[in-house]
Amino acid sequence: MDFEYNDKTKRLLASLNAFMDAHVYPNEKLYYEQVAADRWTSPPIIGDLKKKARAEGLWNLFLPDSTHGAGLTNTEYAPLCEAMGRVHFSPQIFNCAAPDTGNIETIERYGTPEQKARWLPRMLDGDMHSAFAMTEPDVASSDATNIQSSIVRDGEDYVINGRKWWTSGVGEHDCELLIFMGKTDPSAPKHKQQSMILVPMDTPGIKVLRAMSVFGYDDAPHGHMDMVFDNVRVPASNMLLGEGRGFEIAQGRLGPGRIHHCMRLIGLAERCLELMCRRVSSRVAFGRPIAEHGVTLERIAESRILIDQARLLTLKAAHMMDTVGNKHARAEIGMIKVAAPNMACRVIDWAIQAHGAAGISQDFVLANYYAHARKLRLADGPDEVHRNQIGRLELRKYAEAV
Amino acid sequence: MDFEYNDKTKRLLASLNAFMDAHVYPNEKLYYEQVAADRWTSPPIIGDLKKKARAEGLWNLFLPDSTHGAGLTNTEYAPLCEAMGRVHFSPQIFNCAAPDTGNIETIERYGTPEQKARWLPRMLDGDMHSAFAMTEPDVASSDATNIQSSIVRDGEDYVINGRKWWTSGVGEHDCELLIFMGKTDPSAPKHKQQSMILVPMDTPGIKVLRAMSVFGYDDAPHGHMDMVFDNVRVPASNMLLGEGRGFEIAQGRLGPGRIHHCMRLIGLAERCLELMCRRVSSRVAFGRPIAEHGVTLERIAESRILIDQARLLTLKAAHMMDTVGNKHARAEIGMIKVAAPNMACRVIDWAIQAHGAAGISQDFVLANYYAHARKLRLADGPDEVHRNQIGRLELRKYAEAV
Amino acid sequence: MDFEYNDKTKRLLASLNAFMDAHVYPNEKLYYEQVAADRWTSPPIIGDLKKKARAEGLWNLFLPDSTHGAGLTNTEYAPLCEAMGRVHFSPQIFNCAAPDTGNIETIERYGTPEQKARWLPRMLDGDMHSAFAMTEPDVASSDATNIQSSIVRDGEDYVINGRKWWTSGVGEHDCELLIFMGKTDPSAPKHKQQSMILVPMDTPGIKVLRAMSVFGYDDAPHGHMDMVFDNVRVPASNMLLGEGRGFEIAQGRLGPGRIHHCMRLIGLAERCLELMCRRVSSRVAFGRPIAEHGVTLERIAESRILIDQARLLTLKAAHMMDTVGNKHARAEIGMIKVAAPNMACRVIDWAIQAHGAAGISQDFVLANYYAHARKLRLADGPDEVHRNQIGRLELRKYAEAV
Amino acid sequence: MDFEYNDKTKRLLASLNAFMDAHVYPNEKLYYEQVAADRWTSPPIIGDLKKKARAEGLWNLFLPDSTHGAGLTNTEYAPLCEAMGRVHFSPQIFNCAAPDTGNIETIERYGTPEQKARWLPRMLDGDMHSAFAMTEPDVASSDATNIQSSIVRDGEDYVINGRKWWTSGVGEHDCELLIFMGKTDPSAPKHKQQSMILVPMDTPGIKVLRAMSVFGYDDAPHGHMDMVFDNVRVPASNMLLGEGRGFEIAQGRLGPGRIHHCMRLIGLAERCLELMCRRVSSRVAFGRPIAEHGVTLERIAESRILIDQARLLTLKAAHMMDTVGNKHARAEIGMIKVAAPNMACRVIDWAIQAHGAAGISQDFVLANYYAHARKLRLADGPDEVHRNQIGRLELRKYAEAV
Repeated sequence: MDFEYNDKTKRLLASLNAFMDAHVYPNEKLYYEQVAADRWTSPPIIGDLKKKARAEGLWNLFLPDSTHGAGLTNTEYAPLCEAMGRVHFSPQIFNCAAPDTGNIETIERYGTPEQKARWLPRMLDGDMHSAFAMTEPDVASSDATNIQSSIVRDGEDYVINGRKWWTSGVGEHDCELLIFMGKTDPSAPKHKQQSMILVPMDTPGIKVLRAMSVFGYDDAPHGHMDMVFDNVRVPASNMLLGEGRGFEIAQGRLGPGRIHHCMRLIGLAERCLELMCRRVSSRVAFGRPIAEHGVTLERIAESRILIDQARLLTLKAAHMMDTVGNKHARAEIGMIKVAAPNMACRVIDWAIQAHGAAGISQDFVLANYYAHARKLRLADGPDEVHRNQIGRLELRKYAEAV
Repeated sequence: MDFEYNDKTKRLLASLNAFMDAHVYPNEKLYYEQVAADRWTSPPIIGDLKKKARAEGLWNLFLPDSTHGAGLTNTEYAPLCEAMGRVHFSPQIFNCAAPDTGNIETIERYGTPEQKARWLPRMLDGDMHSAFAMTEPDVASSDATNIQSSIVRDGEDYVINGRKWWTSGVGEHDCELLIFMGKTDPSAPKHKQQSMILVPMDTPGIKVLRAMSVFGYDDAPHGHMDMVFDNVRVPASNMLLGEGRGFEIAQGRLGPGRIHHCMRLIGLAERCLELMCRRVSSRVAFGRPIAEHGVTLERIAESRILIDQARLLTLKAAHMMDTVGNKHARAEIGMIKVAAPNMACRVIDWAIQAHGAAGISQDFVLANYYAHARKLRLADGPDEVHRNQIGRLELRKYAEAV
Repeated sequence: MDFEYNDKTKRLLASLNAFMDAHVYPNEKLYYEQVAADRWTSPPIIGDLKKKARAEGLWNLFLPDSTHGAGLTNTEYAPLCEAMGRVHFSPQIFNCAAPDTGNIETIERYGTPEQKARWLPRMLDGDMHSAFAMTEPDVASSDATNIQSSIVRDGEDYVINGRKWWTSGVGEHDCELLIFMGKTDPSAPKHKQQSMILVPMDTPGIKVLRAMSVFGYDDAPHGHMDMVFDNVRVPASNMLLGEGRGFEIAQGRLGPGRIHHCMRLIGLAERCLELMCRRVSSRVAFGRPIAEHGVTLERIAESRILIDQARLLTLKAAHMMDTVGNKHARAEIGMIKVAAPNMACRVIDWAIQAHGAAGISQDFVLANYYAHARKLRLADGPDEVHRNQIGRLELRKYAEAV
Repeated sequence: MDFEYNDKTKRLLASLNAFMDAHVYPNEKLYYEQVAADRWTSPPIIGDLKKKARAEGLWNLFLPDSTHGAGLTNTEYAPLCEAMGRVHFSPQIFNCAAPDTGNIETIERYGTPEQKARWLPRMLDGDMHSAFAMTEPDVASSDATNIQSSIVRDGEDYVINGRKWWTSGVGEHDCELLIFMGKTDPSAPKHKQQSMILVPMDTPGIKVLRAMSVFGYDDAPHGHMDMVFDNVRVPASNMLLGEGRGFEIAQGRLGPGRIHHCMRLIGLAERCLELMCRRVSSRVAFGRPIAEHGVTLERIAESRILIDQARLLTLKAAHMMDTVGNKHARAEIGMIKVAAPNMACRVIDWAIQAHGAAGISQDFVLANYYAHARKLRLADGPDEVHRNQIGRLELRKYAEAV
């Protein structure tokens, strides 16, 4: 066993942290001001920082393929993901933001040469955004077989109809591509009904109804959009991998995405714990710094324990994905999906409490980050669905012996 | 012991519930649409419903003085407060919304005949809004002795300087009056330094900087404002009760306000539990209604237990205020301040989880109500301050015996 | 609403508390010494105190029938139950201990004149103990239809066979009577299969296998016995109420028993909170009394809130039983069954923690009381069964409206 | 990073698990029967198994020094510790039980050649037991400076006076040696007042008052004894390391002991989770196996998450001790001391609940193991003391930056 990051990771982490210190934290305020001034356009500071980051080689770090990216394993990339997670908007600076990362991997892994040629270069250059349309409002989409949108072959085209919401990233002014999941064959076996298809955002028939709100936040300019697809027609060549293979692709992109989400949440929680520590050290109530009130120390200690445990579990899941593969890491991937967002909600809630009313306001990132962490207890399946699956895997170990 | 509401309460509660059913729930959607269309003006539907409510005698129910109000004790009024609390914006329909209620009581109890004559009639008629400026950004205001704003006598006037935030209600276009708390004599004994004074909103020197955000909500058109008072000059006759008596007034208005807040939270939680029950009965996941998943039943049951316990504790505190007075109900008033918001956060969080991603969006009131309940774990002193005081009162029972 | 105890209750409570102060607390140590010296005989101090209590009119307080008892309603008796609950062994001093109380009520309510004449006088005089045999080791007895013991008619007799465990009170040297629940007709409708029958302990075929252990405690001399009934033959006239009416009787005795158990747990928790307060006030760690450590105050405050809420809920359930009957109080009776033992476990665990290692030892009652409270999360159905039922009752309110 | 155990660990773990399967689990029942028959003598089965284990090379595995032991690092030994922890009495079979392990390490590290020659051979052969006397009843010993026992030089001897309790292992009939901690110089600086000295159990003046009870368990034949030392006189050559160096020794033995305790708790929790899984798979309630009730799956999943996280944190602490030393692992050692026992209590409590009343009885190890895990929330300092220290270390990271 070895709990130390390897040299490659350490080196990149040092660069990344230096970049965060020099360029990201000092511009947090500016970022929010620019968003407030022009809500649905990517703020100029992001463009500026992207150039800087790329120049320093901090670009496409997530890509395990070293031709285009950093060639890191999940275990090597995970700590970088945590570092970026400390500032919610920072991953895009390094072209490492969801859902673009998942989309790039999907196209690279499952795309035809033509599909790759058309989309990958600009995506890898960070010149456009993309989105992933899966969740639907009318069904419990924790059970993915519930999805109802249709993708119907019609001559040389597919015709797409359906309603999708929580389509994140569509708010970006340069969101040019959607990966759409829907049913090509409702009569096929349960896990062969679904397909994924590439849909350029300028295709007629796509209508954005509204931005969904996360607690009161619309997360502009990224946005989580409620959309209608009304006879949206795309060439048959836009199909990914083949009809009925949507679930297969979904499984493939799932694992790394979970690691990224969870490591970012760990970074988020670390940041909030830092804010908490600084706050309680500087505020006095009833004659003593809040830091010396017993309940404060208890919460800081519990936060430290919870964060460190969640990090280790996530790194272990990453390590298993790297060594024995997604399938054998299934339980662990489910476990971090439960553990990390709950941990983050717990830690941030304490941090809020330590800040008094300021903690829920726009003066600190805490309430916003809480909303984000809370959302991740629901996105990609609510806690309960994952716990059920983890529980069943555990029971299976003793099934023969009953 | 008798756990039944008396006939007066039952009768009013029936009327109020009938009014809610007939006029409030059916207009919830309209209310939010009107607010979205014109954010910082009271939506027309509120004015319409106020007329209806007053016509039906559902007006100023909070006032223990029966000349102007319903003449109810705290115990009698509490269940009505719960009923109104089910819809966050409904108390103002019955002229029962904070902080107007506290301000009316303060002026009626401590005001001079002139102060009463000038302000009470229009406040009792619901023709204007008012606000209460206490909390300050630079100090831990859980410890009220930290307040730093100054109220300085200058000839026939007082001159007010300071910064106040979370001044709720200033967003209303017809907010005409502020009750301001500040120090008249920083050298006086700790609890004699503070005074309260009436400040008309049109007095020069008052500047509203911004609306504070509660998670992502600005609570327009009510608003929680961040304000500067820069040499705001009001006549000396605007002083309430006398210099140095600010704490005394604060204590007086505190008790009933707590009961109101807590009962409204109980109504809020009941509403969210109802939403949860309806949702889980109508959604299917993995082949069974969510209602039949064991964890759902557990949470519904725990919610029922938590809500009923919090209600009983709040009613008991109200009963003690009515029978033995605020001072002897001190522990109980502190206890409900801790129990009710935590209960509400707990119940609403489960309700959100049962709704999936819809639960955190604008499609349900849940996330908004969570933000409100969460705020009340901080407003009027964070949980920790109250628990400390409750703990000390408990220890005191055995102090002589150590 | 009225949260005050009535005069009758206040008067009896004052007498009872005075008796506890004068005679029970001062003899706690002696009680445990006498038990240690002669484990399976009722310690002499109990007999002494019973005489004293009866002389002072503190006798059979639980009996709603005033001919033999105090003629109290559930609401009136509940606070007395709490007071007795502060010392685990004290209820028997007042002839108010389970399962004798439930057995007396059962015989008085459902017994024939002959059954009453034979058993009631000595039970009411506290001259014998009795037990109630329901739970069986081989089935999940939370689902009472699982019970498998048989009661078979054979001429003028019934012949009883089966295994029963957790038969509390059989350890007492003068336990003379068992009420036994078993199936008379396995082919009858589900709730008509069971019957209850009186079984004198000296009937041949009864074998006590061992005392069950609750954590490490065998609760001598009371005991929770594991027993075999091997062709135990009793006269047919010992049947209670009639064949197939076991469930009906079980329902009848259930409600008051729950109130008693819960109120005693509240007394238990109050006692442990008192111990905690005294301990933390007298111990110093790291230069300050433990009482001044923030986390201590938090826990004391939460304990106070939890206890007061559980008491109110239990009193409300008692009030409903008195006014609208067991059936309409069904949800509330389930709720207190969940709330009270969990509350007690929570409070006692904190009290233990405040005592350090002494808290889990024989030097304080804490660990023993924890074991008792923990047992009550399982006895009469585990939490989960009750929460499921409470959840279903709640959902039913909205069932028509889905 | 590498989350796999190395080959040495894997090989030993396989042997150990095979031994547990072949010899330990099948003899659990026998062990408890032998203890019941002769409570304060080591049961014969232990002696038998010790011989077997030693023959198979599973002996003194804890010893980092490979001359006498297995020469394992903390990280290598930890997984073996977990495996043994699954059966509470099994560590002694491999001569790996506390407090003997700590005592052996102490003597080996700090003993004089004479001290080593006298004691080590028989201890390493498992031919005797030893104990460690630190905790005292009259002071909060979480703060070790509170210790009051005295060790006074008198000519060629030291004379020891004081009261010690929770002296574990003294119950063993062959406990021959105590390491005693007391004050040699109350006027020295705080951390130089204490010394440790070797005290043969047959020295006159040692009196065992009683066995302390852990919940209801006395843990015979091991025992946690309450003892008086009345003018106990030992040669000055029995002093360890030198006067005033007691704290230094305590620090040295602390780290590895924590790892052992925590890993054993993890094994304990795994065992209880296994019992839970088997139970819920085999029991039916309300028409379905308990395993299919939603709340059961939730708890199994949470248990799996909690256990895996605690294990990773403990292994990381072990790794840090091996690579950067105890001092730099201080925070981590504190964190596992909090996390592991709380995790175990949480998991075992759920396992108990899944077993119904059987779960708290002697028919399963659950209640006994709960009591043990609960004790470890107090032993070596209660949770609160450790959380305070962890909190302070965290705050220190930002101290300069306030």
